[in-house]
Amino acid sequence: MYGVGVGPGDPKMMTILAKEILESASILLAPTISMESSGRAEEVVRAILPNREIERIVFQMTRGTSGQTLRESSAKAAARELFERCAPDEDVAFVTLGDPSLYSTFYPLARAVSQLDNGVEISMVPGIPAFTYLACRVNMDLLDNSERLYVVAVVQDEDLDRLCDLLADRQATVVIYKCGRRFGKVREALAKTDRLSQALVGEQLGTQIERIVEASLVSEDYLSYFATVISPAIRSDFG
Amino acid sequence: MYGVGVGPGDPKMMTILAKEILESASILLAPTISMESSGRAEEVVRAILPNREIERIVFQMTRGTSGQTLRESSAKAAARELFERCAPDEDVAFVTLGDPSLYSTFYPLARAVSQLDNGVEISMVPGIPAFTYLACRVNMDLLDNSERLYVVAVVQDEDLDRLCDLLADRQATVVIYKCGRRFGKVREALAKTDRLSQALVGEQLGTQIERIVEASLVSEDYLSYFATVISPAIRSDFG
Repeated sequence: MYGVGVGPGDPKMMTILAKEILESASILLAPTISMESSGRAEEVVRAILPNREIERIVFQMTRGTSGQTLRESSAKAAARELFERCAPDEDVAFVTLGDPSLYSTFYPLARAVSQLDNGVEISMVPGIPAFTYLACRVNMDLLDNSERLYVVAVVQDEDLDRLCDLLADRQATVVIYKCGRRFGKVREALAKTDRLSQALVGEQLGTQIERIVEASLVSEDYLSYFATVISPAIRSDFG
Repeated sequence: MYGVGVGPGDPKMMTILAKEILESASILLAPTISMESSGRAEEVVRAILPNREIERIVFQMTRGTSGQTLRESSAKAAARELFERCAPDEDVAFVTLGDPSLYSTFYPLARAVSQLDNGVEISMVPGIPAFTYLACRVNMDLLDNSERLYVVAVVQDEDLDRLCDLLADRQATVVIYKCGRRFGKVREALAKTDRLSQALVGEQLGTQIERIVEASLVSEDYLSYFATVISPAIRSDFG
């Protein structure tokens, strides 16, 4: 079973290997929150392989303290469904946004599949992560010399305290994922640490409705789930 | 001018967009440490586009306290060379390993080019970073729920102190770049923070001579420049 990262949303961000696997797999599965609507990963595949048959598998993507449990049980249900639908020896590819090793929907599924049948061979195919895509879109250097990069998720209020600690490291670029529902608090944290004016927000990256904007100009307190925030390291020599 | 990330070394890790740009650019430049030998980025392009003409541009990649200055002056020299060689309006693509926003050779060059002629349009094309490639190769989940990811470089001894602080955060996955010459010290830091047994080392990723091995089994104190180390977050529920 392949877990194929398709990148943030722009179909051309798919790797050559990812495309080959999506073409050759006998069954292609895409996660969705309901059978009636397509997920974003499915949209990416459709744009590059319009005639490919794609099956949907319902997957609860909610995270957080209680979300984690929900996600685990959802992954287990999806794994059982996968075993019912696919004959053994079938070449199954499961598509996931971004990269399968970074906050992906694939990993909990792969774990649940291994628990049901540990003979299934799992293979993860890397994808362009949303944060490097966003950095490249605006010609931003995330890391140089001995600078550091922190990638954090803000899924609960406790994560905000740690975020402030990390933002205090001026030589670090901080990438914030999953902060959509707490964007107002994140903006406060950026302001408190003097980082608001340089921070960026990206939403719907790689799609037709992509929005990339300075964090200081975003007045909403809630953003979409897939919003990505970058607060660049503070540099004296260039901007 | 395009800065095209070609991924860690496996030609199939190139994105569809990267391949298109490498095919269509009128001049393709690859960095090398000497005109007589090919750099790794050039090798990746050759594997996927064997008939493509690739020009070499000498680039000093050494970093660190003094390396930084050397790198800046090397970037300036490369930028001047680029202006001498390329006619204006030429469609130039410069290839770089991994992703252009992460410790890449492209960024200092782009900055130097902008300083010589700020009318040059710069465009960065994302590439698969070495660390997510390494994670995917071993089916490792780098980040889940509210875990954190720290990407750090160890170019000087002072970086080792901070590394220990970061390793102390048990819910963080720590990726270590550029620690080749100080691997012995990094191994000590991993051992001191009880993380040595789970840490991984990857070298020559994506190439024929790729080596992926547990850090505890690596006895050398010096590794190659492009070695990547991953110390996964400490989890209780699964391995």
